[in-house]
Amino acid sequence: MNIVLLEPDQITTTDDVWQIENPRQLQHLRQHIQLNCGDTLKVGVRNGQRYLTEVISVSEQQIRIRPIQLEAIPEKLPVHLILALPRPKVLRRIIMDAVTLGVERISLIHSYRVDKSYWQTPFLQQLNDYVTLGLEQAGDTIAPEIQLYKRFKPFVEDVLPTFISDQKPAYVAHPYAEQQMPHAIQHSCSLIVGPEGGFIPYEVDLLKKNGCQAMSLGNRILRTETAVSHILGRLFI
Amino acid sequence: MNIVLLEPDQITTTDDVWQIENPRQLQHLRQHIQLNCGDTLKVGVRNGQRYLTEVISVSEQQIRIRPIQLEAIPEKLPVHLILALPRPKVLRRIIMDAVTLGVERISLIHSYRVDKSYWQTPFLQQLNDYVTLGLEQAGDTIAPEIQLYKRFKPFVEDVLPTFISDQKPAYVAHPYAEQQMPHAIQHSCSLIVGPEGGFIPYEVDLLKKNGCQAMSLGNRILRTETAVSHILGRLFI
Repeated sequence: MNIVLLEPDQITTTDDVWQIENPRQLQHLRQHIQLNCGDTLKVGVRNGQRYLTEVISVSEQQIRIRPIQLEAIPEKLPVHLILALPRPKVLRRIIMDAVTLGVERISLIHSYRVDKSYWQTPFLQQLNDYVTLGLEQAGDTIAPEIQLYKRFKPFVEDVLPTFISDQKPAYVAHPYAEQQMPHAIQHSCSLIVGPEGGFIPYEVDLLKKNGCQAMSLGNRILRTETAVSHILGRLFI
Repeated sequence: MNIVLLEPDQITTTDDVWQIENPRQLQHLRQHIQLNCGDTLKVGVRNGQRYLTEVISVSEQQIRIRPIQLEAIPEKLPVHLILALPRPKVLRRIIMDAVTLGVERISLIHSYRVDKSYWQTPFLQQLNDYVTLGLEQAGDTIAPEIQLYKRFKPFVEDVLPTFISDQKPAYVAHPYAEQQMPHAIQHSCSLIVGPEGGFIPYEVDLLKKNGCQAMSLGNRILRTETAVSHILGRLFI
């Protein structure tokens, strides 16, 4: 946690004194920082500004702070991450990582090798919490848009093409592609990462027919979560 | 698991028929592949060759296979990853990822913000298992060398310099460095990644004094495990 993220309705007080009352945030601060009055603390407002604040009071239930200075928000990566819905256990980390790395938009899609039960996981109701963790890690305040698409074909045929243009290609990470995933690109793109076990040939073909380019990552096969941060490190420098 | 990794002593049979008897491997194969006689299976021998094999028999306790063809082993990345010992929970994933990505050598070191209790974790006795998982994921057979250094200063002053040369620089990932982490390098290097919370200034200074270059990753602060795959994706294309 490199900033404390407040919700917009937490900063509507008129006297410019804000309260941190979220138990998770309070516990983290107690455990890692041990704040005292007069200390400074980095605080962001979800989808708003980021501030350096001054600590006014510290108690078990509440930390009161006052903003003293605006701070810069890190830039996003111009990338739309399209991800076959991962296993619930992995979902949290992968969303958190994508947000931390600055992905602008995330789409979670179905695919043949995505177990249908994954769409029932309660974790999908908690995406907002994972986004918060990612923003707090990165020091960012702007949440990416996250969309769910439970049907592969309608997504690929009807939705995906609206995101693709000459200036904004779509790359599918595919172990058996001939072309290498590009690096240090200077434009935006969509990045499509399949499920554990990969997309089936029918799916790769349909993606290609609808404007995507299959790109190899070399001859090592990566776990989904490793692949996402690895490819983003390669694409944007 | 993209190959099944056997230990060298499992393939000393004279008749060129090998057995898979490891319960974890058998369960994975049952769950994900459902092998039948005559199917092919990718198999590697730890620190040895990789083969395409043919399945001869399948039972609850054992799968018997026969090698039919040598396969190429993916190349390593020419990098020595030096990592402040992560939390036990994270250790497994980070070792597995580093191995999957092809890191040649790993050193786990102490640092001020590494909790001393981490050195007592039983997980440190299981590094070999995590290496196996990483190799099986990547389709690799060659285990990286892993060394533990429980004292920071002697490591940085006496050991680290032996790994540094003009042809093999050492980069410390450091959020507040002025220079940017290089990308698409054509030479080997050491990559040093600090603990959650980062190296303390004394440590960064000592690393610099002993030949390391502090390199920034931009203004987003990444979790250790995200940083490792992200930086490797950037360094080697």
